[in-house]
Amino acid sequence: MIDKLVEMIKKTHAPIVVGLDPMMNYIPEHIQKKAFAEFGETLEGAAEAIWQFNKEIVDCTYDLIPAVKPQIAMYEQFGIPGLKAFQKTVDYCHQKDLVVIGDIKRGDIGSTSAAYAAGHIGTVKVGSKEYVPFGEDFVTVNPYLGTDGVRPFIDVCKEQKKGLFILVKTSNPSSGEFQDRLIDGRPLYELVGEKVAEWGKDCMGESYSYIGAVVGATYPEMGRILRKIMPKSFILVPGYGAQGGKGSDLVHFFNEDGLGAIVNSSRGIIAAYKQEEYAQFGEEHFAEASRAAVKAMAEDIDSALKVRE
Amino acid sequence: MIDKLVEMIKKTHAPIVVGLDPMMNYIPEHIQKKAFAEFGETLEGAAEAIWQFNKEIVDCTYDLIPAVKPQIAMYEQFGIPGLKAFQKTVDYCHQKDLVVIGDIKRGDIGSTSAAYAAGHIGTVKVGSKEYVPFGEDFVTVNPYLGTDGVRPFIDVCKEQKKGLFILVKTSNPSSGEFQDRLIDGRPLYELVGEKVAEWGKDCMGESYSYIGAVVGATYPEMGRILRKIMPKSFILVPGYGAQGGKGSDLVHFFNEDGLGAIVNSSRGIIAAYKQEEYAQFGEEHFAEASRAAVKAMAEDIDSALKVRE
Repeated sequence: MIDKLVEMIKKTHAPIVVGLDPMMNYIPEHIQKKAFAEFGETLEGAAEAIWQFNKEIVDCTYDLIPAVKPQIAMYEQFGIPGLKAFQKTVDYCHQKDLVVIGDIKRGDIGSTSAAYAAGHIGTVKVGSKEYVPFGEDFVTVNPYLGTDGVRPFIDVCKEQKKGLFILVKTSNPSSGEFQDRLIDGRPLYELVGEKVAEWGKDCMGESYSYIGAVVGATYPEMGRILRKIMPKSFILVPGYGAQGGKGSDLVHFFNEDGLGAIVNSSRGIIAAYKQEEYAQFGEEHFAEASRAAVKAMAEDIDSALKVRE
Repeated sequence: MIDKLVEMIKKTHAPIVVGLDPMMNYIPEHIQKKAFAEFGETLEGAAEAIWQFNKEIVDCTYDLIPAVKPQIAMYEQFGIPGLKAFQKTVDYCHQKDLVVIGDIKRGDIGSTSAAYAAGHIGTVKVGSKEYVPFGEDFVTVNPYLGTDGVRPFIDVCKEQKKGLFILVKTSNPSSGEFQDRLIDGRPLYELVGEKVAEWGKDCMGESYSYIGAVVGATYPEMGRILRKIMPKSFILVPGYGAQGGKGSDLVHFFNEDGLGAIVNSSRGIIAAYKQEEYAQFGEEHFAEASRAAVKAMAEDIDSALKVRE
């Protein structure tokens, strides 16, 4: 799957992932109204609104991008109906041949991590039959429990040709509280980064490992160091746009080959129509605003990478 | 909710939580067969088997225990049908007046943690209506992202009178890989423990905070230290029984008042019928074996606490 991701980044010239994190207040009123008319102001109604919103954005952007990253929390908050919308979104993005990164940030002790891995990137057995429950291509994993919490995810990746992005340095303001603490003179995130590199060694695709890392765009200097610590790991970079990261902050997350990172934007793309810059599209044409925002983001990153050359 | 938990522990004399982590190989064949006869060898069939298994165990143990802890991964691995069984289990345990600890180990950046908190211990708004999606009483939370990842959970707890158990020192063998690393001469788990105490300060029930911690039974010496660092935090202690912890290892997780800890056992109770000790019950009467195992566990802990006095 890492090879497919690399190939699609090369094809689209856009190391970009669209974060499908549909907060209700991003969803235009006409979509909400229609969904509520059909299902009432219920969890099912909210789920329908989310699904229709996602579908339109995917329809308007899929040819420009290699991947999407649905944030499962935004679906899980609407209970079972919300999770059905997550499932539908994953399936629909696969129909559009997009790589799907499930932003699930799971992580537990061995047997429990194995269950999460089976559910999200693997298969489960029921009697003599085998099923693919959620079927994402990559998932994000929390490393706090150490190797035996991560290993079951890696095992499933090997079997199924899937991939991981392991949290190393997150984009939020207080990520440093534990992640930056010094251990033998070096911050915890560097030790986690070293582990990611080690875990990824025997998980190589053609040029990159399918065991990647999450490093926030909001910490470019740390990105530069982590890039060197994990030369073969793809870095998923959240925090572009709305969280404050800019294209010029991002160059050091990439390797000299112009690869090795994929930058996420959620609100900046899916709620682009709310920004002054894209206001001319109007709420009705929100997905076209998203398309314009994807193009602008790809250009921002591309020109930042060119300046570096 | 912490006050209800304390009250129920006093009433049952059992600081015990039954881990409802139904792996398929724990579920007796007659239950699987019946479920598959009705729903086929499908995800729905697996979910039905899980639900029937849980129901029987709850029916046979609810009067002896204060709380249950369903591990969501064991449900999530069966996709949407599995998560419906999780939901049904939570609802049924509430009917039996049990405290429900959702072992979800979520944790993300602010707005995303807020969505998880809403979904699991809070409410969501849909138009003018408000819903309780999963409705657990407590959830487990991963602290790797720092205060702003945890704060949204705490905010919801305050509003809804719910509670948290934050991962401090987990029970698995490689938990030390990051959690034990020394920072200014002290292990990371102590710093996380200090944060838990700090977060819990303005979240007090009658005698304990509703912001608790997870500390594995497999590390009793660390439990002793963490007990002192977080005197007002309830400690959820996994790893009893199957993972190697014994009653005598547990005394230091408790305060002098005999409270302050609640010990989880999953496999040791729900799959008790597979142990030689309880083999006389037979597979048909698996839930009675679970009842006997709960009694034995309560006694083991009670006598360990008495020896300490």
